[in-house]
Amino acid sequence: MSTKGKGKILLSITGFNPQRWYELLSAEREVVLEPDGAADPSIDYAVVWKQKPGTLAKLPNLKAIFSIGAGVDHVFADPGLPDVPIVRVVADNLSQHMSEYVLWRVLDHHRQGQLYRAQQTKKAWHEPPQRPAEDISVGIMGMGNLGRAAADVLKAVGFRINGWSRRPQEVAGVTTFSGEAGLVPFLNATDILVVLLPLTETTKGIINYGLLKELRRRNGLGGAVLINAGRGRLQRDADILRALDDGTLKEASLDVFEVEPLPKTSPMWNHPKVFVTPHAAATSDPAHLVAPMLSQMAAFERGEPLENVVDRNAGY
Amino acid sequence: MSTKGKGKILLSITGFNPQRWYELLSAEREVVLEPDGAADPSIDYAVVWKQKPGTLAKLPNLKAIFSIGAGVDHVFADPGLPDVPIVRVVADNLSQHMSEYVLWRVLDHHRQGQLYRAQQTKKAWHEPPQRPAEDISVGIMGMGNLGRAAADVLKAVGFRINGWSRRPQEVAGVTTFSGEAGLVPFLNATDILVVLLPLTETTKGIINYGLLKELRRRNGLGGAVLINAGRGRLQRDADILRALDDGTLKEASLDVFEVEPLPKTSPMWNHPKVFVTPHAAATSDPAHLVAPMLSQMAAFERGEPLENVVDRNAGY
Repeated sequence: MSTKGKGKILLSITGFNPQRWYELLSAEREVVLEPDGAADPSIDYAVVWKQKPGTLAKLPNLKAIFSIGAGVDHVFADPGLPDVPIVRVVADNLSQHMSEYVLWRVLDHHRQGQLYRAQQTKKAWHEPPQRPAEDISVGIMGMGNLGRAAADVLKAVGFRINGWSRRPQEVAGVTTFSGEAGLVPFLNATDILVVLLPLTETTKGIINYGLLKELRRRNGLGGAVLINAGRGRLQRDADILRALDDGTLKEASLDVFEVEPLPKTSPMWNHPKVFVTPHAAATSDPAHLVAPMLSQMAAFERGEPLENVVDRNAGY
Repeated sequence: MSTKGKGKILLSITGFNPQRWYELLSAEREVVLEPDGAADPSIDYAVVWKQKPGTLAKLPNLKAIFSIGAGVDHVFADPGLPDVPIVRVVADNLSQHMSEYVLWRVLDHHRQGQLYRAQQTKKAWHEPPQRPAEDISVGIMGMGNLGRAAADVLKAVGFRINGWSRRPQEVAGVTTFSGEAGLVPFLNATDILVVLLPLTETTKGIINYGLLKELRRRNGLGGAVLINAGRGRLQRDADILRALDDGTLKEASLDVFEVEPLPKTSPMWNHPKVFVTPHAAATSDPAHLVAPMLSQMAAFERGEPLENVVDRNAGY
C-alpha cells in the first residue's frame, strides 16, 4: 500500500544490510538511502543506525530522527547532529526479546549451568546445593522500558528485584534506588547485576572494578554475577576480567564490549567464566519496529506529539 | 514446639540422609525411623521416600502415607502397600523450583545456548537468526500443579503453550489436548516438549521414537527439543539418542534417566546435544515441605479431609 506525497524518509544505516528496513518503510513512504546533495529539501525524516557523521547536518526540512535501536548513543556520535527531535524505538517486541535474554542469562547463572556443564564433561552425577529464586536479589541498572519489562518476568519467576536509575522512580514489586547516593546501597543488596543503562557521558565506564566490588557476595554463592546487555562502553573490559580472576565476580554474561566485534585477541573469548554473545540480546527487528515508526510519522503529520523523544540534556 | 500425644510418624527414607526431615518433623510430633515390630500400633502416619517394601503392610493404625516428592511411583513400588490415603507433596516451593528449571532449559534451547557456546570456543562473532518466543510453541505433558506452574512462567515470557493431560482440562492461556486422541495433534503443534508426567502403568516408556517423530520440525529451527523433568522410566533413552542422531530432535535437556545415577557407560554423558542434570530440577526441600505435611496431619485430626490425595486407580 504505497502512498506518496507523505514525508520522505532518509534511511541511513552503517554496519548491516538496510534492505529489509528499506522494503518495509517503502510500503508506505518514499525512502532513499542517500540525500540528493547535503541540503536535500525533500527529506522530512531520518531513520538511522550509525549514520555517517554530517549526513543530517544540512537537511533544511528534517523534522525528526528515528533511531533503530533503543540506545541513541550512536545518534549522538554524529557531531553534525541537527536540533530536531530524536525518537527512540520502543516496541513491545524489543522489550520482550531483551527480557528473554535477561531471564535466560539470570537463570543460567542462578541454576549453575556452567558448573553442570563442567560436571557433565567429567560424567559426574552430583547435585550441588541450590538456592531458590526467592532467596536471590537481581539488581537492574536502568529502569526504562527494557529494565521494567525484565523486572516483570524476573518477578514472575520469584526473584527479588532491585532497580537503580538516575532519577527516583516507583516500580511495583521493585526495591528502587537512585542517583549517586543510591548506587552503593543498590549494589550491596544485589547478587546478580543486570545492566540495561543507556550510554551517556555520565554512564561511560560506570561498570568498573570499584562498582563490581560493592556487589553482594553471599556465603555459598561463590561471587556476584554481571550481565551487560546495554552498551559496551558502559564497562571496562579489563576491570571485569580482574573481578572474575580475584573472585569478586563468579561469572559474567556479556552481550556488549568496549570494541565490537570483540577482537580475537580479547581474553573474554576463552575465559571459562564469561559467556559471550555478539550484541544479539535483542535485535531491532524491522518487521516489528517499522510499523510504530510509520505510525509516529503519520501522527506527527496530524499534529500530534511524537512519543519516546530523547532528552538531549540527559543524552537518552 | 514439641507436642506429644499427637499421631506418631514413621519416617522411612531410602537413598538420602533423613536427618533434616527427622529434625523438622520432630519439632511437632514424635518421629521414628523404624516401626517397633512389623505391626507397631503406635504409628499413625508414614512419611516416605522409597520405603523398604513391606514396611507399611502390617501397621494396624496407619491412617495416611505422605510422599516426599511430587511423584508417587516410588510408593506404589511397594507390593505391601496398605489401603490408606496417599498424600502427594504439593508445595508452592516445589512448583516454583520446577518452573525455574523448565524456564531455564526452554530459554537455553530457544536462545541457542549450545550454538553460542560452540561459537565462543571458535571466537566466532556471529549472530544466527533468532525467532521470538511468541513464534514458539512449548508443549507440556502433564497439567497438574507442576505443569500449570511452568505454563504460567512460560506465558509471562511470551511462549505459546500447549498442554496435554490424560483427562480433558481447561487451563487459561493454554491450548489443551487430552487422552490418546489428543496426543498426536498436541505433538504436531509443539516445537519444545516439556515432560512433567507422573510415572504410571500407562505412561511408562511413553517418550519413545514414535512420539518424538510427531513433534513439529519447522524450517530454520533445526529439529524439536525434548525436556524431561518427570521420571526417567517415562522415556526410552535409546530412542532419544536415535532421534537426536537422525535430526528428529535438535537438542535435549534430561534431568531423569531410565537408570539413575546415570551409568558412566551411557552415551548421554558426552552427547553434544544432551544437557544432563542429576535429577536436580526441583528437590524436595524439607524446610518448605514439612510444614504443609504437619498442617495436613493436624487438619485430619480435626476431622477435615486430606488434600492432594492420590487416585489409586490412575496411579498418581
